[in-house]
Order: sequence, then C-alpha cells, then structure tokens
Amino acid sequence: MPTYHIELLEGRTLEQKKKLVEEITRVSVEVLGVSPGSVDIVFTDVQRHNWATGGKLWSEPRQ
Amino acid sequence: MPTYHIELLEGRTLEQKKKLVEEITRVSVEVLGVSPGSVDIVFTDVQRHNWATGGKLWSEPRQ
Amino acid sequence: MPTYHIELLEGRTLEQKKKLVEEITRVSVEVLGVSPGSVDIVFTDVQRHNWATGGKLWSEPRQ
Amino acid sequence: MPTYHIELLEGRTLEQKKKLVEEITRVSVEVLGVSPGSVDIVFTDVQRHNWATGGKLWSEPRQ
Amino acid sequence: MPTYHIELLEGRTLEQKKKLVEEITRVSVEVLGVSPGSVDIVFTDVQRHNWATGGKLWSEPRQ
Amino acid sequence: MPTYHIELLEGRTLEQKKKLVEEITRVSVEVLGVSPGSVDIVFTDVQRHNWATGGKLWSEPRQ
Repeated sequence: MPTYHIELLEGRTLEQKKKLVEEITRVSVEVLGVSPGSVDIVFTDVQRHNWATGGKLWSEPRQ
Repeated sequence: MPTYHIELLEGRTLEQKKKLVEEITRVSVEVLGVSPGSVDIVFTDVQRHNWATGGKLWSEPRQ
Repeated sequence: MPTYHIELLEGRTLEQKKKLVEEITRVSVEVLGVSPGSVDIVFTDVQRHNWATGGKLWSEPRQ
Repeated sequence: MPTYHIELLEGRTLEQKKKLVEEITRVSVEVLGVSPGSVDIVFTDVQRHNWATGGKLWSEPRQ
Repeated sequence: MPTYHIELLEGRTLEQKKKLVEEITRVSVEVLGVSPGSVDIVFTDVQRHNWATGGKLWSEPRQ
Repeated sequence: MPTYHIELLEGRTLEQKKKLVEEITRVSVEVLGVSPGSVDIVFTDVQRHNWATGGKLWSEPRQ
C-alpha cells in the first residue's frame, strides 16, 4: 500500500523504469506519509499490437 | 475513457485483434456517445499454463 | 475466456451497460468463435475524482 | 500511455490525490518524454476489510 | 509478492473473506515458500449489474 | 466468479502453479459454496526488472 500498476508501450529502458520507480516512491512517501518499503510498483510492457486507441492498434501506421 | 482490458487465451491472430478493436470502438461510440479517440483497448495474451478453470490449467488435458 | 474489464466514468446507465454487454458478446462470438457463455464482462464505474488525465482529476474544472 | 492504476487504502484526501496526480504526471513527462495529456491515472480506494497482508484483513486489529 | 486480486459477486460476508485470506495465505506459504507477510490479497466486490456472462448482466433474470 | 488474478515473481514452476490452482479452487468451493467450474485463476509472471518495492527494482542488488 500503495500499489502501482503502470502500463507502458514496449521499448522503455531499464534506466527509465529505475528513475520512475525512484521518483514515484519518493512522491508517495511525501504525499501519503507512507514508508518507502510499503510502495509496490509493477510495470507491464504492452506490445504495440496489443494496445489500440481510436479503433486502431499502435502497430498500424497512423497519419 | 472508456478503457478496455481484454484477456484472451494465447493464439489469437492480429486480424482477430484488429477486427475486435474496430467493432468494440464502434459500439462504444454508438452506445456511450464518446469520440473514437477516447477509447483505449489493451489486450493480454494469457498462456494456457497461466489460466485455470475448475482447478485445472488450460495446458492440461481435459476430457 | 475472453474476459473484459471495462472502466467507465461514473454515470453510465443500466441500459447503456446492457447494450454494451450484448454487442461486445456478439462481436466476441463472431470474431473469436467462442460460445456466448464463455464471455465475461466486468464494469468498473470510476468516480470523477478518481480518474485523471493530463495531470488533472476529472472532478476539477477544465477549460 | 502510460496508464497508472493506483490502489490506496481508503481515507486519502482529494488534496493528496491531486498532488499525486500532478507529481506523477510531471515525472512521467520528464522520464518518458510523453505529453501530459497522454498520462492517465486511475485510483482505487480499497476498504480496509478488502485488503489483507500476512493473512489478516486491515480491518482487524494488529499488534 | 505474491499479490492476489479476487473479484467476487457482491454479498460475501466478512467471515468468508477472513477465511479465504487465511487459507490462501497458508497455501501460498506452503506452495511458494514465501513468508506470510509477503502475501497481499485485495478483494473487489462486483455488483450484479456490473458483471455479465453470456451477454447478460447478473442483475437480470436468468432461466 | 470468483476470478483470481495472481501476480508472481518470475521463476515459479508449473508444479507450483498446478498445486496453487488445486488448492485455491478447493478453498473457494469450501468457503464460498461455488462450483469448481466457476473458479477462474489467471497468473501473471512478473519479471524482476518489472517489480519494485521500496524504490528499487527486484533485479537490482539488495543488502
């Protein structure tokens, strides 16, 4: 508590995830007053052919 | 908004996902009165050894 | 299988949910070749103060 | 994209959610290089009798 | 780790949740070799008008 | 109904999943009075670089 589930389009680097995790944990501690150890974060890398917006998969060409 | 998460047993084709995405977006626009661009759809392909019904994984033989 | 989770901003009517459920089940049967009874759909009504886009909750005024 | 789902124990204030939303959106823009408008955040307020850790619901007394 | 999300049709009692939590935590410790304190369980009570199977909401009459 | 989503750190064996599925289904039948066939369980294997606790990914060294 709190628990974060973060869906990202595939291709994010380990460095980006590390940075996000540090910052989100820090912000959670500040805003919610929880201990860092209580913050869980789970990433899901979503492939472009598994995410659609506006009726079109992100693996398809967009204008 | 709306956001759809769809869990499928692995093996669905890209064509099936494209068709589902088109139809679900169209239905959402019709029924909810939202714009197509506001409809997000995320698929999760679940492997047969990661889904169970009735106490048995779908990777195991069924009668 | 398949299982749908649909997040909607609060305020959708029962009629809209019924219609969505009928259409999405029908489309799933057509596109995926599954039986109607295998299609599960779960709605989550998200309150406006629990959904944010662009750094702002939907309960706050937008220009 | 990205989409955040954040589970919190019930009782967090609107001010805390606003602050979290601002900070997480800002961090996402910085680290991922996305536009603010692409960041969606959905909170779930979990009641204490619906969350358990260590085999005990959070509505039960702990030593 | 592990984290369980359990969706139930509304109406389950606190006693049923307590019992489930105890048993699932015990089973997780036995099978996975984790400590009890690492097992998180979150329940979602789904209202009958928010869950559909076979194209029909569970709030509607079934034969 | 009920539907379980179980997030595990990657590396769990098929035997462990089979055992969990059997036990959780049995417990659900006992406690909730449902039929075994109504119990769905979906596992997600989370890679160590996609899960963080305390501001640190589980792929990073811990003291």
